[in-house]
Amino acid sequence: MYELGVVYRNIQRTDRETADALAALGSATVHEAMGRVGLLKPYMRPIYAGAQVSGTAVTVLLHPGDNWMMHVVAEQIQPGDIVVAAITAECTDGYFGDLLATSFKARGARALVIDAGVRDVKTLTEMQFPVWSKAISSKGTIKATIGSVNIPVVCAGMLVTPGDVIVADDDGVVCVPRAMAAKTLEAARKREANEGEKRDKLASGVLGLDMYKMREPLAAAGLKYID
Amino acid sequence: MYELGVVYRNIQRTDRETADALAALGSATVHEAMGRVGLLKPYMRPIYAGAQVSGTAVTVLLHPGDNWMMHVVAEQIQPGDIVVAAITAECTDGYFGDLLATSFKARGARALVIDAGVRDVKTLTEMQFPVWSKAISSKGTIKATIGSVNIPVVCAGMLVTPGDVIVADDDGVVCVPRAMAAKTLEAARKREANEGEKRDKLASGVLGLDMYKMREPLAAAGLKYID
Amino acid sequence: MYELGVVYRNIQRTDRETADALAALGSATVHEAMGRVGLLKPYMRPIYAGAQVSGTAVTVLLHPGDNWMMHVVAEQIQPGDIVVAAITAECTDGYFGDLLATSFKARGARALVIDAGVRDVKTLTEMQFPVWSKAISSKGTIKATIGSVNIPVVCAGMLVTPGDVIVADDDGVVCVPRAMAAKTLEAARKREANEGEKRDKLASGVLGLDMYKMREPLAAAGLKYID
Amino acid sequence: MYELGVVYRNIQRTDRETADALAALGSATVHEAMGRVGLLKPYMRPIYAGAQVSGTAVTVLLHPGDNWMMHVVAEQIQPGDIVVAAITAECTDGYFGDLLATSFKARGARALVIDAGVRDVKTLTEMQFPVWSKAISSKGTIKATIGSVNIPVVCAGMLVTPGDVIVADDDGVVCVPRAMAAKTLEAARKREANEGEKRDKLASGVLGLDMYKMREPLAAAGLKYID
Amino acid sequence: MYELGVVYRNIQRTDRETADALAALGSATVHEAMGRVGLLKPYMRPIYAGAQVSGTAVTVLLHPGDNWMMHVVAEQIQPGDIVVAAITAECTDGYFGDLLATSFKARGARALVIDAGVRDVKTLTEMQFPVWSKAISSKGTIKATIGSVNIPVVCAGMLVTPGDVIVADDDGVVCVPRAMAAKTLEAARKREANEGEKRDKLASGVLGLDMYKMREPLAAAGLKYID
Amino acid sequence: MYELGVVYRNIQRTDRETADALAALGSATVHEAMGRVGLLKPYMRPIYAGAQVSGTAVTVLLHPGDNWMMHVVAEQIQPGDIVVAAITAECTDGYFGDLLATSFKARGARALVIDAGVRDVKTLTEMQFPVWSKAISSKGTIKATIGSVNIPVVCAGMLVTPGDVIVADDDGVVCVPRAMAAKTLEAARKREANEGEKRDKLASGVLGLDMYKMREPLAAAGLKYID
Repeated sequence: MYELGVVYRNIQRTDRETADALAALGSATVHEAMGRVGLLKPYMRPIYAGAQVSGTAVTVLLHPGDNWMMHVVAEQIQPGDIVVAAITAECTDGYFGDLLATSFKARGARALVIDAGVRDVKTLTEMQFPVWSKAISSKGTIKATIGSVNIPVVCAGMLVTPGDVIVADDDGVVCVPRAMAAKTLEAARKREANEGEKRDKLASGVLGLDMYKMREPLAAAGLKYID
Repeated sequence: MYELGVVYRNIQRTDRETADALAALGSATVHEAMGRVGLLKPYMRPIYAGAQVSGTAVTVLLHPGDNWMMHVVAEQIQPGDIVVAAITAECTDGYFGDLLATSFKARGARALVIDAGVRDVKTLTEMQFPVWSKAISSKGTIKATIGSVNIPVVCAGMLVTPGDVIVADDDGVVCVPRAMAAKTLEAARKREANEGEKRDKLASGVLGLDMYKMREPLAAAGLKYID
Repeated sequence: MYELGVVYRNIQRTDRETADALAALGSATVHEAMGRVGLLKPYMRPIYAGAQVSGTAVTVLLHPGDNWMMHVVAEQIQPGDIVVAAITAECTDGYFGDLLATSFKARGARALVIDAGVRDVKTLTEMQFPVWSKAISSKGTIKATIGSVNIPVVCAGMLVTPGDVIVADDDGVVCVPRAMAAKTLEAARKREANEGEKRDKLASGVLGLDMYKMREPLAAAGLKYID
Repeated sequence: MYELGVVYRNIQRTDRETADALAALGSATVHEAMGRVGLLKPYMRPIYAGAQVSGTAVTVLLHPGDNWMMHVVAEQIQPGDIVVAAITAECTDGYFGDLLATSFKARGARALVIDAGVRDVKTLTEMQFPVWSKAISSKGTIKATIGSVNIPVVCAGMLVTPGDVIVADDDGVVCVPRAMAAKTLEAARKREANEGEKRDKLASGVLGLDMYKMREPLAAAGLKYID
Repeated sequence: MYELGVVYRNIQRTDRETADALAALGSATVHEAMGRVGLLKPYMRPIYAGAQVSGTAVTVLLHPGDNWMMHVVAEQIQPGDIVVAAITAECTDGYFGDLLATSFKARGARALVIDAGVRDVKTLTEMQFPVWSKAISSKGTIKATIGSVNIPVVCAGMLVTPGDVIVADDDGVVCVPRAMAAKTLEAARKREANEGEKRDKLASGVLGLDMYKMREPLAAAGLKYID
Repeated sequence: MYELGVVYRNIQRTDRETADALAALGSATVHEAMGRVGLLKPYMRPIYAGAQVSGTAVTVLLHPGDNWMMHVVAEQIQPGDIVVAAITAECTDGYFGDLLATSFKARGARALVIDAGVRDVKTLTEMQFPVWSKAISSKGTIKATIGSVNIPVVCAGMLVTPGDVIVADDDGVVCVPRAMAAKTLEAARKREANEGEKRDKLASGVLGLDMYKMREPLAAAGLKYID
């Protein structure tokens, strides 16, 4: 349940170095490193392929068809932030376009994650300002009702608290709580350290069955081969 | 409700100059200029990114799984037209492929907007014949039942009357009624004229809060800042 | 209904030449040549545009959120195969990423068709290992429950028997049963042979109405022209 | 495309006798009698089973999350009317509850058809005021923006012009244009007149194959029986 | 992939006693007894609450918007059968109404399971002829194209072979292959035999944690209690 | 983001009197009284009509296809509680049936709210144990992975903290945070106190336009009447 009509100016951001370092690991590795939690619903898709970012969440709660608070959240952006926008009801309207993107970028935002629609995607692509959204829609919005900025929000099914780390790429969007960020970074790096060697083995034709020693547990689980 | 089995040969098209000029403004600006109406549902997506067109609507009403009328509408196409295809029930079949696209292009059509599926999208992309559709599907259609051409149709939730202007790009598809086209063009141009200056200001770090003088109305609406 | 816990090692693959030749014809033409059957539901989309493949199906049945059997099916892959993965319940999790793709590719697989999610799509795109899936998701899977390999499965609404031919491209995925493969290839080639000539005529402005002699049957069906 | 901010006070209603008589025939028979057109999308469902009504359409266009115009349309209701509510964008909010139902009923309305949500369904069921809707939702709406009353609207994919006849029951909602109402009533009655005799024959074990003389055309179409 | 245009007159039905006995156990218990497979997708819903049936499957494959084969399958019904209808593409049309239900009932059918729409649901409810379907729709169908009867079909994601047992109730629809029917009946009965005792214990306040001896494995899995 | 593998035994429940009193007001009135927030997504539907409850939330986080934690949460139920179940990924499986309902009821639970599927709905209806769910499905679940009990969860898009009040009826499910419960009860009662008088006026034919004095603001907003 949401507190309406408030803007929290001081939030505790995850430390910059940790927040920045998670980008390179990607959403899938980070998601694994967290124990397979933290993923926003997979209907959240990037407006163009290839972007891979991480940053600290500033949040905004909007009403359906109303993007007034987008201008309020713009002021709270610090370099390295990612804006996470939740809506109080389902909506596919285009809350965000090239003008807001220009403003967000000027403030240092790295991306927008919005559980609604976005527009001007051609220009956003040219600007290389990445957005993960539920929809793309020309439909504009009004500026009539106030929501909130920097309260915890539920975005695409996931609770995002201001200052958490957002990791987003072609595979989706993951939220890493501030308290878990350092540990997650470490675990993700460990996972990745092992991957190169595994990849080489698999590329040479070694089977996962052997590399991961799965034959015995599979047989124990009852798997039968039939010729 | 639809009149079936008729082809209207004479429709009143929006004047060419106006219809053509709307393309450059894009669906989002045009949608705003119309007072935020006229948008087809956002499930209508382009088969490839980057196309941006406008043109006069010729309409066709089809039955599920039957594309016979596509050949009938082809004859009614004039250079600068966009074919708008509605179906009498939900269907994702691929009504349109490279042969029909060749024919439509030869007749001067600029695009197809269809509330169903399309196929041969690789070839259509190579031909640069843009299509906005609900689905992509290899499934072909039969030629057994007659529909109508150039009657008013409901396509993706929007009423389209033959001769209206269709504006379509990566953000979606907007229908501008003939009677509103000139006024909409003017309003859209005005909107755009202001955008360059705004963009520069925002890029320099000026906030929308200040540029649009929102601080006072936000406070009046009850917005509170908490440190 | 599925037999669980079995791996069939010997399946009867469609002969290689036929299976390989179908790729060039594409899913739409093959679907037509089969009498408009065999298409997987159109929600199956490629993770990147432009791939066009055919190959012999090896099948795997998985449980929701569990990709253990992916390692089992890897061993059964022969060069020229396409892995077809079905799930016992609806799931969008990312069952497959770059490590498994490396392994599949090393075994000679040409593609994966999965009625669930996939991840590492950026790397898969770089590797040019095509996947047709229902979703893209960072969400990983566990390895706890056994399914089956090389049993007939229902994937995206279509029955796929091991050894059938899979044809997949930007338009979708078609399954050609082994017994029909040769006949389908022949029919598809005939269809295509005619297309060049038709395309030239249509490009020159000849109407389908005339080329296909549709005017008379349309009039017989009651179509009326109104000036 | 919609004209906003207008209320048409004088609409031409289908004559009362015809509008009333269609209820008894039901939406399926009426839909058949119209040549299988006029049906609103099947996601429109009654809030309780068993209601079967017909009446003349008064229409209202609403904005997402805003039911202000519901009070405006109430004044335009005449006994025997059915209110048809369209929304300018997708919305599932509960626009209508027991207070508005009390008002509509007092004005003589027979039902509401709304391409959005409704609430207080328990009380509406007790009042026996039927509603066909896309959703049921506790979410209330604001009263801030004006739409229109008695303009042609697209509701659940179907164009409804004020004064048309709406026929609704457990099978769905059909719109019969005023100009077709008398002819449709006649055709629907003819259909029904034949049904009693057919039902008796089928109940006695006669097959449709024989009653409708389908064996020959089925054989001509190529149907083969295999023992 | 489907064989089109054939009617198999002789199918091997599961023995009557077994097929009939499964009804009393219900779809959930039968589904468990089969090892949690065999369930049609949960979008298949009964048109009225409370029906609980089992019977032997006769299958019919239909084309979108075309119910011609419904009359063909009627002749193949034997007392105790349940008709399972699959469609070659997604469709919500109302393929089946009170006349066909009268005919099916006269032939001894117990129910219809259809991966599409149905209509006349009020009358079907009065007749107590149960239907499990994907949709309810007034939209009628044509009789123009032939499909097949008594071939294996995929219905709502599940393969159904003629003669299999269908078990359907308020929880959904399960298909029990003929070869597994006797074993499944036995296993389902065993499950149920234990349920009475368990229910009594749980009703008296005993926890499943204790009754199923879960505390130890939960602790072993790492579950921690915090006061 | 979720803490996994923990059971909080001591939660602060909203005081009983307040929690109980909210039931009579219903979800729509409570939702209004909270300022139109707190509603779970409207896809949450009751398994039978007519139930209207309120109670204090105990929460459980489950994995897809795994209902092990349902037995863990059972022990934490106190009389007057409502169990709120969230899943870490989308799932429609039937997590809950008559045995668990017997146990929950014996512990004093009033209802279950689950963002997944439920089964044995016929028996649950006979027991009058109400459930609000996303799906109904025979599909059973395994008991293999641990989640958590009494942590804050996101259920159907809404954050639910243990001890919050849940109000559920035919219109949907609302979550009232503990800190707002008393104030919400008071506001809801005030709303309802006014409704009787309003209903009488509307029933007598007075228009909302006059009762709410809307004519002037509508005219000010630009509404025009056309004869």
